[in-house]
Amino acid sequence: MVRRPALTPLVADLPPTVPFVGPEAQERDRGGRPFRARIGANESSFGPAPSVIAAMRAAAPDMWMYCDPDNFDLKTAIAGHLGVACHNVVVGEGIDGLLNLVVRMMISPGQPVVTSLGAYPTFNFHVAGFGGRLVAVPYENDHENLDGLLAAVKRENAPLVYLSNPDNPMGTWWEASDIRRFADALPETTMLIIDEAYGELGPDSALFPIDVSRPNVIWMRTFSKAYGLAGIRCGYAVGEEGFIRDVEKVRNHYGVNRMALVAGEAALADQAYLAEVKAKVAAGRERISAIARDNGLSPIPSATNFVTIDCGGDGAFALAVLKQMIARDVFIRKPMVPVLERCIRVSVGLDHELDIFAEELPGALKAARG
Amino acid sequence: MVRRPALTPLVADLPPTVPFVGPEAQERDRGGRPFRARIGANESSFGPAPSVIAAMRAAAPDMWMYCDPDNFDLKTAIAGHLGVACHNVVVGEGIDGLLNLVVRMMISPGQPVVTSLGAYPTFNFHVAGFGGRLVAVPYENDHENLDGLLAAVKRENAPLVYLSNPDNPMGTWWEASDIRRFADALPETTMLIIDEAYGELGPDSALFPIDVSRPNVIWMRTFSKAYGLAGIRCGYAVGEEGFIRDVEKVRNHYGVNRMALVAGEAALADQAYLAEVKAKVAAGRERISAIARDNGLSPIPSATNFVTIDCGGDGAFALAVLKQMIARDVFIRKPMVPVLERCIRVSVGLDHELDIFAEELPGALKAARG
Repeated sequence: MVRRPALTPLVADLPPTVPFVGPEAQERDRGGRPFRARIGANESSFGPAPSVIAAMRAAAPDMWMYCDPDNFDLKTAIAGHLGVACHNVVVGEGIDGLLNLVVRMMISPGQPVVTSLGAYPTFNFHVAGFGGRLVAVPYENDHENLDGLLAAVKRENAPLVYLSNPDNPMGTWWEASDIRRFADALPETTMLIIDEAYGELGPDSALFPIDVSRPNVIWMRTFSKAYGLAGIRCGYAVGEEGFIRDVEKVRNHYGVNRMALVAGEAALADQAYLAEVKAKVAAGRERISAIARDNGLSPIPSATNFVTIDCGGDGAFALAVLKQMIARDVFIRKPMVPVLERCIRVSVGLDHELDIFAEELPGALKAARG
Repeated sequence: MVRRPALTPLVADLPPTVPFVGPEAQERDRGGRPFRARIGANESSFGPAPSVIAAMRAAAPDMWMYCDPDNFDLKTAIAGHLGVACHNVVVGEGIDGLLNLVVRMMISPGQPVVTSLGAYPTFNFHVAGFGGRLVAVPYENDHENLDGLLAAVKRENAPLVYLSNPDNPMGTWWEASDIRRFADALPETTMLIIDEAYGELGPDSALFPIDVSRPNVIWMRTFSKAYGLAGIRCGYAVGEEGFIRDVEKVRNHYGVNRMALVAGEAALADQAYLAEVKAKVAAGRERISAIARDNGLSPIPSATNFVTIDCGGDGAFALAVLKQMIARDVFIRKPMVPVLERCIRVSVGLDHELDIFAEELPGALKAARG
């Protein structure tokens, strides 16, 4: 037997998990047959603003230069947008990259990390990757359970708790006042990650006002969703100066690509386009909800760019509906954990994509029932 | 005193290091005065191929889509280019990102990691970031010291050793036959990282042929240097199937941005442009070397896109030369460790940038001496 270099015990024991199977992989598995509607990954089918596309095109010849490792221009723009200082902001390779860093900074093997059962799998992937012990609190009425999360934090003495608001995969949200009560009740030694990936798309009243004097809350936002830039990998975290300075000790300083910095800055500058997208997303949510109701299903009110639909049966039935939709060339996804698994999740797409969704859903439901 | 969430002991103890200060930060420190020649970061002033720029521009509107997390198309192209299988390739956010992953996978706190004294600082940053103990072997005759590295690996029983070939910051190289002897002599339980960031720019005879049946060698290459895409963050690692599969357990699956995947694929497809760049880089090396000799300095033969120049004095003198060049709006860098510190490092730039270098060097030398 060949002797080989050893992995750390932690990494050696990790399972060979892939958090998501991408639509491209599904298309390859289907012999290359493309989806007709790509409404499963909560991407923004409306795309980035024309001004952002123009900025990216103009910057293409500059890609021979490394990025500014300080991300100065984008951080300045974000700080100005949010009314905080540059030293309260760190830019990362999407929220995914920032979650990796925060987990790495705070979690030693065996330490408890609290999240909701069925919440963002990539966060769980990072927790597992650094040896954390995941404590997952079930949703309550399709909302992340603030009281349950708080109780779990206290019971476990957890140094880290994750909350998405608005929530994925259910699309529900808490008002800022509820989040504030939750944050105020947390132990000072527990860091709260508020993942606001969908923050621009819900009611403003759901946004827990950023307060960089709180040393135990870190806000995360992204250009992936409302700004239509999922592919460019650009997110940011906002928090207390000392914590942000600590992130600098471990982040990959040249990790955010130059195109992302250009695109992020241009996106932030085009708030008129963001307003257009918000209106289109709201209309799209209404349309998906109406299609669901027309088919006897129950859409869950959403503050995001997707609608999660209660199919009215068990997980097996919703999975059958999902598979029928995939077979009809409609890419959607669904939650997989108990209770939530009764649902499918449909992203707001272009009109013609929602037309296809409306056309195919009745047949999918019939086949799933049959 | 405010109680706050605790970092892991490892991260809490890390110093607040930034591996490099970017030219943009230097320009800001100079009150915004721009450099006239950007020939310090071993970027490719020749830029990406026109075909690559066109591909990026065409792809800009697609950035609303997440990347294919399998990076299937680019991996297929790389595998075809190198004559290996897709399962021998992993794409990362530049070599920097891949170094982070390999260190994380292999190094538990306190374990020794062998490198050369003065070699790539970002590798050292990652080793420190995961608690490794760096064992740095001095260069010998401006080459990484293969015998010394081997002795250090054996003495320390190190699980990981880093070698760049061609080397940065000296530009020197070993022939493949030397690397083979080194690799063959390593313990089977030691992983060798061969960083070939400059691999396309040196003699083919310096490229240690990729052999994916070796479980203890991982080759790393990038689109940052010869392909002129430093800003897009796209590198790849090639190795034995089992190790690549292990990388999948920890890498950020959506971490490589979609634009990077497009650019990398287009770059690989345009080997004619690469050949042009190689010729321009070779000519640029000759020119920098001639300018150095004209000023009484000793250029070190280079297989990269830069020339490291022995200024003929001590570290303080070379630092004075560097500062004089910076003051003259010429961005260059220099090695900082003993022996190597007698040098400055100049990247191959455009003709007009090397004109400026030639114009300013005599004055900088005179001022540094005076």
